[in-house]
Amino acid sequence: MPARSKKGNAMIRFYNGKTLRFTPGVHITSDEVWTDGGVIVYVGAPREDKPAFEREIDLGGDLVMPGFKDAHTHTAMVFLRSLADDMPLDRWLSEQVWPNEAKLTEEAVYDLTRLGILEYLSSGITASFDMYVKNDAYAQANIDSGFRTVICAALNNFDADVENIEREYLKFNALHPLVSYRLGIHAEYTTSMERMEYMASLAEKYREPCFLHLSETRAEVDGCLERYGLTPPQLIDRVGLFRYGGGGFHCTHMSGEDVALFAEKKLWAITNPASNLKLASGIAPLEKMRRAGVKLAIGTDGAGSNNALDMFREMYLAAALQKVAEGDASALPADRVLEMACVGGAEAMGLSDCTDIAPGMRADLVVLDLQRPNMQPENNLIKNIVYAGSKENVRLTMVEGRVLYERGEFHVGESADEIYRRANNFIRKIRD
Amino acid sequence: MPARSKKGNAMIRFYNGKTLRFTPGVHITSDEVWTDGGVIVYVGAPREDKPAFEREIDLGGDLVMPGFKDAHTHTAMVFLRSLADDMPLDRWLSEQVWPNEAKLTEEAVYDLTRLGILEYLSSGITASFDMYVKNDAYAQANIDSGFRTVICAALNNFDADVENIEREYLKFNALHPLVSYRLGIHAEYTTSMERMEYMASLAEKYREPCFLHLSETRAEVDGCLERYGLTPPQLIDRVGLFRYGGGGFHCTHMSGEDVALFAEKKLWAITNPASNLKLASGIAPLEKMRRAGVKLAIGTDGAGSNNALDMFREMYLAAALQKVAEGDASALPADRVLEMACVGGAEAMGLSDCTDIAPGMRADLVVLDLQRPNMQPENNLIKNIVYAGSKENVRLTMVEGRVLYERGEFHVGESADEIYRRANNFIRKIRD
Repeated sequence: MPARSKKGNAMIRFYNGKTLRFTPGVHITSDEVWTDGGVIVYVGAPREDKPAFEREIDLGGDLVMPGFKDAHTHTAMVFLRSLADDMPLDRWLSEQVWPNEAKLTEEAVYDLTRLGILEYLSSGITASFDMYVKNDAYAQANIDSGFRTVICAALNNFDADVENIEREYLKFNALHPLVSYRLGIHAEYTTSMERMEYMASLAEKYREPCFLHLSETRAEVDGCLERYGLTPPQLIDRVGLFRYGGGGFHCTHMSGEDVALFAEKKLWAITNPASNLKLASGIAPLEKMRRAGVKLAIGTDGAGSNNALDMFREMYLAAALQKVAEGDASALPADRVLEMACVGGAEAMGLSDCTDIAPGMRADLVVLDLQRPNMQPENNLIKNIVYAGSKENVRLTMVEGRVLYERGEFHVGESADEIYRRANNFIRKIRD
Repeated sequence: MPARSKKGNAMIRFYNGKTLRFTPGVHITSDEVWTDGGVIVYVGAPREDKPAFEREIDLGGDLVMPGFKDAHTHTAMVFLRSLADDMPLDRWLSEQVWPNEAKLTEEAVYDLTRLGILEYLSSGITASFDMYVKNDAYAQANIDSGFRTVICAALNNFDADVENIEREYLKFNALHPLVSYRLGIHAEYTTSMERMEYMASLAEKYREPCFLHLSETRAEVDGCLERYGLTPPQLIDRVGLFRYGGGGFHCTHMSGEDVALFAEKKLWAITNPASNLKLASGIAPLEKMRRAGVKLAIGTDGAGSNNALDMFREMYLAAALQKVAEGDASALPADRVLEMACVGGAEAMGLSDCTDIAPGMRADLVVLDLQRPNMQPENNLIKNIVYAGSKENVRLTMVEGRVLYERGEFHVGESADEIYRRANNFIRKIRD
C-alpha cells in the first residue's frame, strides 16, 4: 500500500465500525474501508502501514455498506410531486404528466434533476437508472453534482428524430465516467412496431441489452394482447429487443409464461412497489419470480407517482407486499431485498464495479447511523435496515470517492436552498 | 395576554413559519403559536404585547402541526424487532412472542418502553394507545420520559387476577396528567365469554368505551363464526362491550354488515397497515369504511410485527394500499389520512384536547422541516407530508409543552445511548 495515492487523489479511511459485504453471501464484518479517488483500495483489519489519509472517518460503530441503486426512475419528475395525485395511470399521464412535461426546458430539467439528486443522496442512493427527456441537461446536472447515472433511451411515437437514439448512445457512453447510456423504448403501448424494430436493430448492431416499461398495468397487457395476440414480454422478445438481455420496469402483471421467459432469457424485472400502489397498478409477483430464478432489482419510479425517492420505502414495500400478496409472511426475506437494492440494481444497469465493498470496486457507498431508536436493539442488523430503516439513518453518502452528503448537509457544488429556489420558480411559472 | 405566565411555567413562542390546523377543515396559516406550560395559549398574527418567553423558536418557514397519535401499539415490543420476522401470525405469536414475553420483567418493560418512546418522538408521535403488560413499569417510563399515553386494558384467558382490571382503571386514571386508561380485552379468540361478559359489566358500571384486537386475520373471523355464529364485531356488540362506544384494532376483515355496525354505533376502526402487510393479514377496507362514515384512526402496532414505529410509513400505506385494493387511485385522499393520524387517533383515545393547534389545546405538537428535498417543490404541503414525508422531516416534537426531541437529540431525562445499552443487555440475557 503506497504512503500516498498513486493518482494524487484524496484517500479516505472509514474505521471503528461495521462493514456490510455481499460476497460471499451477505455478511457483516468489523473491517475498515479505504478509498483512493473513485476506488475502494482496501477492506480489512486495521494496519500498521497506513498511508497519509486526507480524511479518517470514525464510524463510532456505524455501518459502511454499498450504496442503493435506483434501478428505475425519472429524476426530473420531482416537479410533479403532489401536483397530480389521486388519479388513475391513464388520466394521470394524459391530463397531468404530458401537458406539464411539454413545458420542460433544458434549464428546468437541469434544475429539477439537481433537486432529485439531493433526495437520492438523502436516502443513500448512489446511482440512478433514469429514463426521461432532454438528456444533455440531465447528464450535466449529474456530472455537476458528482452523481452516477445510467441513462435509458426512451424511444416512442412522439420522438421527431428517431436516429437521435444512436447519436445519444455513442455520445453519452463517451461523455464522462459518471454517465453511461443503455438502449430502450418507453413502452409497447407508446411505440410503433416499426420503431420497436428499429430499436431491435440497434440492439443487434451494438450487442446491447434493452429496457422498457413492461406490463405495468392490466390495461397495458390487455391492449398488447388485443393488438398482437401476445403479452408485452412475449412481443418484445419476438421483436428481438431482448436478444442481448435487458429487462422490464414494473413487471406488475406477469403471467406464468412471462415469468418463465424472463428466467430463461436472464432478463431483469425491476420493481417499483410504491408507484404501483399509488397508481393502483397492482403488486408485482416478486416472490414467484424469485422462486423461478428471475433477476430482480428495485426502483422508485418518478416522484410524480411515488411520491418520494426513498429506497427504504421501496425495500420495505417490496418485502411486505409480497407477504400479503402471497398470504405467506416468509415470502421474499430481508437479505434478498437488500441484495436487490444494492447489487441487483447495479448489475441491471451495467455497473458491475459498483456491487460491493471490496478492493477494486468503485467507492459508491453509504454509512448508516445505527445509534437511532429504529436500529435498536441489535437483534438483526439486516432486518433492521429493511424492515425499520429510514432516511434518518443515512449519515453519509459517497459517490466515486466523494462525500456528497453527510449529517444532513449536501456537498454538490451549490446549496440546497438555491436548488429549492429554482425548482419552486419553475413550478410557479408553469402554474401561472 | 399576561406579561408572564399565570402558572409560572415556561412560555414558548413558535414564529416565522406555517401552522397546520384542522378546524374548520384542514388548512395552513402563517400564524404563530404560543405555549404556556402544557397548553397552547395563542395562535394568530404576531402581536405587540408579547409576554417574556422562556424561548422563542424561529421556524424559518417550517411547519407547526398537531402531533401524530399512535392509536394502537405495544411499545415495549421493540425487543422483538427483527427477532422473529417472516412467520405467519399464529406461529409468530405462539413460537416467538409469547415465550419471549414470559421473560419480561418490570425493569425490562420500563427500559424497553423508554426505547419505544424515543422512536415515537423521532417520528413526531406525541401520544400512544398502548396495550401490553406490567402497566406500572410502563406508566412510569412514560411519566419519566414526559410522554403521553393511554393504556388499554387487555383482559384475556391468561390473566390470573381478573379484578386487577378495575383496580388499574381506577389507579391509572388518577395517577398522572400524562397517563389515562381505557377498558378493553385482548381479543375474542383469547378471551372466554365469561371474561368478555365481566368486561361488559365494567363498561356498563363506568359507562366507558371498550377496545380490542378485532377481525385482524381471516382465521380469527372464521374461528369466531364457528364458535358463535357471529363475526367478531357482531359478537362483541352482542356481549355489550360496545354499549358506550369504543372500537377495534386492525379491522382488516370486515364484512359489509360489520362496516354498517361500526358506522351505526360510532365505533372506531383503528388501522395498522404495516403490521397487516408484514404478517400477511390483509388490507383493511378503509375506503369502504370511510364512505360508510366509520370513524378512523391509525396505529403502528408493535415493533415486533411492523417493524418500525413510524407514522409516516403508516400514513403512506394507509393511503397507497387503498388505491391498489380499490383499483382506484383517488381512494382515501391525503388530507383525510393526515386527519386520521392527528385528530382521529386523539378522539379514539379520549384525548379530545390534543386534536388541534388552537388555544386551550394541550401543547402536543411537532415541527416539520420543509427545507428537505422530499418536501420540495411546494406544490401541495399536505400531500408532500403524507406521500413523501419521512422521519428526516421531524425537527422538533413537543409533549405537554416540553420539547422532548429536537434536531436529532432527545430530552427525556436520560441519554439515548444509555437507553440503547439497557435494551441490548436485556435481549442478550433472554437469548443466552
